[in-house]
Amino acid sequence: VAPASSTSAAGSSAWVITIGDELLRGEIVDSNKSFFSERLLRLDLETARHVSVRDDPAAIEEVAREAVRRAGVVLISGGLGPTRDDITTAVIAHSFGRPLVRHAPSLERMAAYFASVGRTMTENNAKQADFPEGAEVLPNPLGTAPGFMLEIEGALLFCTPGVPRELYRMVDEEILPRIAARQPREGALRAALLRTFGLGESTLDHELRDLAQGDADVQLGFRTQFPDNLVRVVVRARDGGTAERKLAGLVASIRTRLGPLVVGEGEARLEAIVAELLLAKKCTIAVAESCTGGLLASLLTDTPGSSGYFRAGWVTYSNESKLRELGVTADALQTHGAVSEPVARQMAEGVRARAGVDFGLAATGIAGPDGGSEEKPVGTLFVALATERSTEARRYQLMRERARNKTLAAQIALEWMRRALLGYAVPDETIPRMRGVGQ
Amino acid sequence: VAPASSTSAAGSSAWVITIGDELLRGEIVDSNKSFFSERLLRLDLETARHVSVRDDPAAIEEVAREAVRRAGVVLISGGLGPTRDDITTAVIAHSFGRPLVRHAPSLERMAAYFASVGRTMTENNAKQADFPEGAEVLPNPLGTAPGFMLEIEGALLFCTPGVPRELYRMVDEEILPRIAARQPREGALRAALLRTFGLGESTLDHELRDLAQGDADVQLGFRTQFPDNLVRVVVRARDGGTAERKLAGLVASIRTRLGPLVVGEGEARLEAIVAELLLAKKCTIAVAESCTGGLLASLLTDTPGSSGYFRAGWVTYSNESKLRELGVTADALQTHGAVSEPVARQMAEGVRARAGVDFGLAATGIAGPDGGSEEKPVGTLFVALATERSTEARRYQLMRERARNKTLAAQIALEWMRRALLGYAVPDETIPRMRGVGQ
Repeated sequence: VAPASSTSAAGSSAWVITIGDELLRGEIVDSNKSFFSERLLRLDLETARHVSVRDDPAAIEEVAREAVRRAGVVLISGGLGPTRDDITTAVIAHSFGRPLVRHAPSLERMAAYFASVGRTMTENNAKQADFPEGAEVLPNPLGTAPGFMLEIEGALLFCTPGVPRELYRMVDEEILPRIAARQPREGALRAALLRTFGLGESTLDHELRDLAQGDADVQLGFRTQFPDNLVRVVVRARDGGTAERKLAGLVASIRTRLGPLVVGEGEARLEAIVAELLLAKKCTIAVAESCTGGLLASLLTDTPGSSGYFRAGWVTYSNESKLRELGVTADALQTHGAVSEPVARQMAEGVRARAGVDFGLAATGIAGPDGGSEEKPVGTLFVALATERSTEARRYQLMRERARNKTLAAQIALEWMRRALLGYAVPDETIPRMRGVGQ
Repeated sequence: VAPASSTSAAGSSAWVITIGDELLRGEIVDSNKSFFSERLLRLDLETARHVSVRDDPAAIEEVAREAVRRAGVVLISGGLGPTRDDITTAVIAHSFGRPLVRHAPSLERMAAYFASVGRTMTENNAKQADFPEGAEVLPNPLGTAPGFMLEIEGALLFCTPGVPRELYRMVDEEILPRIAARQPREGALRAALLRTFGLGESTLDHELRDLAQGDADVQLGFRTQFPDNLVRVVVRARDGGTAERKLAGLVASIRTRLGPLVVGEGEARLEAIVAELLLAKKCTIAVAESCTGGLLASLLTDTPGSSGYFRAGWVTYSNESKLRELGVTADALQTHGAVSEPVARQMAEGVRARAGVDFGLAATGIAGPDGGSEEKPVGTLFVALATERSTEARRYQLMRERARNKTLAAQIALEWMRRALLGYAVPDETIPRMRGVGQ
């Protein structure tokens, strides 16, 4: 963390600037700006303006100078790459009368990287080690372009790469701490993020609104990250300890109210939460999938170390494969159809026996757009879970869209697993009816 | 379509402004701006700036006045709703000295809508029928808030609702025709998008640059959509036919130069391209996965109608499941290890025989972050394909990051399938070394 200085970023607002012809041509949707602004809010810093300009020196200089004049914190993303189009560093140096200086440690790091992948470093790449005089270099562990910070006329100016995963990490690890270090400590801010599954944004708002009402020091925010809905709780108090206690009380109230609809806290998604539980309880799992087509297995193997709990998966898309691989009976297929509770049960039991695991988890359904009938419309889903003691199965009705149905079906199956590991009852049939989602 | 007037939007550039506190808090990712800009490009109109401001009269007035001074076309979205926060219309009227005038047909339409849904129209809603004097009202068939157009100081200013589906329709049906009607007809623009896999952005640029050099009527643009790299070709000519012929010639030249590295044209991704080929050739496929953990099956089942070619998938994460389910031999596992060419071959052959399909496709590797050795570091991948005639296998070296390795391994396996279906040789070991990707 950088030392405190005379720069006061607190109380002022931020401008976020993104640079690139591709943005102004509409070739990509720019999510960097909303990421920046959401993160700045955690430091109680409001964003006053988002601006995007082309890879054009005059435009970049104009907007950077205006931003530094009007905002306490300026974030600029994009244009730090090795190509001719990447001019941000040079333009910022020129705009604020700072000569470019080569930064030896960055050059060495880059040279080592190129050597490690057996490539030659060109002068194009070397320019990524040039920074305006007086800049503090911000390391980029995920790419070749470091970022940098300048203090100009009382403002903090940060330049970052435009590649989302690189800038996300740089913002969290390098930029937010530097801004926080310069904020006068007038009261403390603490925040928590609760991840819920099964209620829509507006329902959440309605259910929880009274917890913050009449208290200017508590803020509740809601946002959707399909199929999850997130609740952000922000508390301000005179000191950190008080804020933490107040936050803990609020989080406990929300958890009591929502029960198992809160699937976790923080950025970890449901598959990571389930992975952690499986590892902690030393349980093994195998899956049998039809409508999710491999997505359930893929989510369960996204977490490093997944071979500790995940043994095998079967994507039994055809009836024959259900029969042959999982021991689903011809009778069940004929009498009830491949999308049915008896078949889901047999798939779960079959996969559990076959793989010799603690949990056999199965999903069979109609993802769409075709294949629906009056009795079993598109979006029909059966989930089943076989354990040492018993097998449970249940029917759900999802939506009409294939991609969302795959995602939602896999999420419901994961939620079965989470609840089973925590001793909750299986999710009831209202769980996919997330009011507010998909509207 | 409005009559031509003295306003000349052609040759000038556009500013796109979006309004709303939720944007500046990062609560939503703003896709309206990229939509607008992409649509404007079809009229050969470049966007010079994207700006977002809060629901604040001074900020809206400032940026609207600046935009009208500097751009030929100004699009403003958001703030036309019925709530107190929705102030765009009033601010625009004030900014340009136009009193608000109630538009009787809009009011009638709104009253009829409220009557039809059995609700009472309030004065809040009625304000949505107020427009600045001289405005042309733009109907909104999908919502209660019409848009409007003003001609100010030689610029065209359009205000639209912020709800994406409402504004998409308004742009296409009301706004683009009005802009086009004012453009002098000087030439036609045609564009193509080529999807490549296996070369980085900068290499592509280098390989193709001379095709556009010295020709002001040809533009090549490059962008990454991991793991693909896209080339956009834009051609201008005196008429549509000439532009189309010239574009076709350029696309053919690029295809000749890059050969199988061009995987397709347009927005369809590799999995959709492979799905289409499998369906067209009436071929069936089954997959055996280790490091991709179900992702390969999931991609192959993302396309509607995938049961027409996809039969079954095995995610054989453990050695036992490879042995038992796919007939991989204990000898191969012991002698060569689970991540080896012989095991990849046996997986592909095993899955082909087991599922009774035309193609058995297998991937085994070390996704990371753990599990690597000196001989087989993280990122080691073997892909194998078994067909009626033979089995081929090959080793690749991917990167260090688990998530990207899963994605890249699945993509390489899909690329094997595409090339096999088209009669190309399998991708060589340079295919994952996409210079430029990940920078």
